[in-house]
Amino acid sequence: MVNIAILGYGTVGSGVVEVLGTNQASINKKAGKEIHIKYVLDLREFPGDPIEGKLVHDYEIIINDPEVDIVVEVMGGVMPAYTFVKRALEAGKSVCTSNKELVAAYGSELLALARSKSINFLFEASCGGGIPIIRPLNSSLTADEIDEITGILNGTTNYILTKMSGEGSGFETVLKEAQDKGYAERNPEADVEGYDACRKIAILSSLAFGRSVDYHDIYTEGISKITTTDIAYAKKMGSAIKLLASSKKVDSSFYAMVAPFLVTDEHPLYSVNGVFNAIFVHGNVLGDIMFYGSGAGKLPTASAVVSDVVDAAKHLHVNIMSFWSSKKLTLTDISNARGRFFVRVKGDREAVIKIAEQVFGRVDQIKVDGVEGETGFLTGILSEAEYREKAESFPDIISMIRVQR
Amino acid sequence: MVNIAILGYGTVGSGVVEVLGTNQASINKKAGKEIHIKYVLDLREFPGDPIEGKLVHDYEIIINDPEVDIVVEVMGGVMPAYTFVKRALEAGKSVCTSNKELVAAYGSELLALARSKSINFLFEASCGGGIPIIRPLNSSLTADEIDEITGILNGTTNYILTKMSGEGSGFETVLKEAQDKGYAERNPEADVEGYDACRKIAILSSLAFGRSVDYHDIYTEGISKITTTDIAYAKKMGSAIKLLASSKKVDSSFYAMVAPFLVTDEHPLYSVNGVFNAIFVHGNVLGDIMFYGSGAGKLPTASAVVSDVVDAAKHLHVNIMSFWSSKKLTLTDISNARGRFFVRVKGDREAVIKIAEQVFGRVDQIKVDGVEGETGFLTGILSEAEYREKAESFPDIISMIRVQR
Repeated sequence: MVNIAILGYGTVGSGVVEVLGTNQASINKKAGKEIHIKYVLDLREFPGDPIEGKLVHDYEIIINDPEVDIVVEVMGGVMPAYTFVKRALEAGKSVCTSNKELVAAYGSELLALARSKSINFLFEASCGGGIPIIRPLNSSLTADEIDEITGILNGTTNYILTKMSGEGSGFETVLKEAQDKGYAERNPEADVEGYDACRKIAILSSLAFGRSVDYHDIYTEGISKITTTDIAYAKKMGSAIKLLASSKKVDSSFYAMVAPFLVTDEHPLYSVNGVFNAIFVHGNVLGDIMFYGSGAGKLPTASAVVSDVVDAAKHLHVNIMSFWSSKKLTLTDISNARGRFFVRVKGDREAVIKIAEQVFGRVDQIKVDGVEGETGFLTGILSEAEYREKAESFPDIISMIRVQR
Repeated sequence: MVNIAILGYGTVGSGVVEVLGTNQASINKKAGKEIHIKYVLDLREFPGDPIEGKLVHDYEIIINDPEVDIVVEVMGGVMPAYTFVKRALEAGKSVCTSNKELVAAYGSELLALARSKSINFLFEASCGGGIPIIRPLNSSLTADEIDEITGILNGTTNYILTKMSGEGSGFETVLKEAQDKGYAERNPEADVEGYDACRKIAILSSLAFGRSVDYHDIYTEGISKITTTDIAYAKKMGSAIKLLASSKKVDSSFYAMVAPFLVTDEHPLYSVNGVFNAIFVHGNVLGDIMFYGSGAGKLPTASAVVSDVVDAAKHLHVNIMSFWSSKKLTLTDISNARGRFFVRVKGDREAVIKIAEQVFGRVDQIKVDGVEGETGFLTGILSEAEYREKAESFPDIISMIRVQR
């Protein structure tokens, strides 16, 4: 029997209890032993709840119980999660977490600590919810040098963009609708400004490239400025606007970025809609692969956490996760990132295109019925730095959206 | 150092040599030891080839060399692959294979043999080429009861259907073109009649459901009868025709089928085009996930084989694969499988629809410009048995295509 303690009885925590209950027999079979919830830690009381008898308010009870083999941290936030997780690992207890803030901030330290104790620090649920991506990166894509990871890693923003595209409603309207449905938080900043996706791509990049990517270094732009006119232009180009979190290795340098991108219908990420997430990976021998699924939600996230619990139970005293070095991966300034840019400029078409051709060389003009008083065009391939310099020739740029290559 | 022997220096075998060479440093790092090719077995000579010095023609040299830890079987076909693999496992050597015929025919026996020797029989490359699916099914989706696996598992047929749809050319024309490009075999039967996809879904189902699925029991229909008119109807319905290999658990029974299906643009498999493959999985708590990538090709397939070699090298004397029982999984006759059916019947529209409404109840008539002398309609949801019985009312059915639910 393997005893586990669950820290936090919120959405994911109660999902973990539910999944372990629903699929008890098959989970125990796959783990090769019985998984038993010994404690649930939460400050609140849950009278009448099935876990009532396991509820504790004091972490000391868990940390001091030598029978607890695995700690499941599903509280979220950096503190006190970091303290709790570190103490658990120091006490020789493996940890499974869904906490992206924690992993993005302290992943390399906690992985190294787990390794030094021959136990495990697992975090499948921290990126892409129920989508298996951490374990495949760790143990399936081992024949490849990964040179690109690009994901739709935030369900809230993908839901908003999909709805804006489908219904023609504006950002604020759809955001409010998403909040009413519980798909977006009351304070939506972490999602809509790209901070959530930024932490996730930092984790995935650290794992794929083997060195710590500091999420503070990642250029991050959200979707709050995307308008229905931008979406009309995108459709005209046979593209969709998606918030992409991307990191790429170009020659021997790395860069990472979170921003809205135009994705053509030839790209597998194009048709990832609603609250779904997907992670596109390019390996130097494997080529393109993509993992698709529910990026959030109680049960999908809990499923990923429980798959970690099974793996931790199967490997109680064997470290199985790749290590990423605490050495920092220096990201290149995105100035060197190259691609096409879609630009909307205020003013008369002929005049704008004339200047555009002077500064950018050939451009493709995009016309949308009913959109007047402005001009939209696609540049050729150039670097961010080149774009910024050339864009100074236009006093009135309405918006610029990058094109996914 | 881990010594490996590669059986077969054809497309995949030479790909394995290439991948191990290209990514040598990172592969050795991930394996935690140096992976060294000691032998390559092939009946042919390869004068001047870098592996010339490792080439042997006699399997006895490999089987009798105690330094060989891992045998990589990439010859294809059941014989003599089965004999070679069985002898390797009996001699305590782990085996990594890309051979779907072998795994579909002898998977449970070889898995049990590997387990009894505390070594590994791994076959990531046997299904979906470079797409990680075997390992995720084995070690990621462990919190779930899988109740559906539906895949586009054959790149040749998906290429043909995509081309027919894009160019409006007929099956024979596109097949010839695919043969000329090397995407289809001179004898295309195994691909176009669905036999290849059938073996792959048998393997995936055995793994997901834990008991041996005999591929002979799987209802299998190919794409050779699909016409451009069928595709025109599909487009009219906002759907694509895809050769799907599917197995589902319904209540406590299981059924499996390979057949062309109409897939609507709401389904993630809809936009899987060309030679790409994808595997859609539904778990009872996880919901929908999909794995997408190159289903064939020298380097993607070799990448999957080498990921198995890395895993085998990391676990030289620890069995890591789930076992599927040699007990047979009895598949229910597909008579009970339920869904909608798209039917084309010769004859006058009014007359056909009148009969259709009599036998099927409400039907949706589908009209395609320029298609005359026949009538296409969609039935409601009914079982295969009900469909077959009711379809007898029509003497002149041109074609029937199932609709993916």
